[in-house]
Amino acid sequence: MNFLNIEFFGYFAAILTTAAFLPQLIKTLKTKQAQDVSLTTLIMFICGVGSWIIYGYKISSSPILIANIITFILNLFILISKLYYSKNND
Amino acid sequence: MNFLNIEFFGYFAAILTTAAFLPQLIKTLKTKQAQDVSLTTLIMFICGVGSWIIYGYKISSSPILIANIITFILNLFILISKLYYSKNND
Repeated sequence: MNFLNIEFFGYFAAILTTAAFLPQLIKTLKTKQAQDVSLTTLIMFICGVGSWIIYGYKISSSPILIANIITFILNLFILISKLYYSKNND
Repeated sequence: MNFLNIEFFGYFAAILTTAAFLPQLIKTLKTKQAQDVSLTTLIMFICGVGSWIIYGYKISSSPILIANIITFILNLFILISKLYYSKNND
């Protein structure tokens, strides 16, 4: 397998694991509830993605940096939506 | 910042973004429902993590390989639990 094919898996993986959170955000905004989504998971994941951003910046890796900034923003919106709707549903 | 500190952020990030899915799995098994968890997100994320496993294997990166295998297993269990409980709740 040549370099191009290996890189393809890397970019394909990065796009999928980043874009994956868009349907969750859309679902949460549509249904106006995210009770079943774990708050601990969201907080741990956002902190982890934040660390990936620092790591990507330190090793000067644009793919790690870009993918994680988008993942960070999407999950932050999911977290805000969850907190907003759980407050309004109480 | 020296190499050790940079690597620390990488490992810290990998541990957090991997372990983050454990609380979601525990919550789903406890509440026996995951209606609010997006099915599309789970499928896209599992496919993406699968691609990271192939990428990690191809570039011989143990941290990428190990972290993504654990993430893959945890999310597969979340997906199975979601499908199982949604069937039983119908």
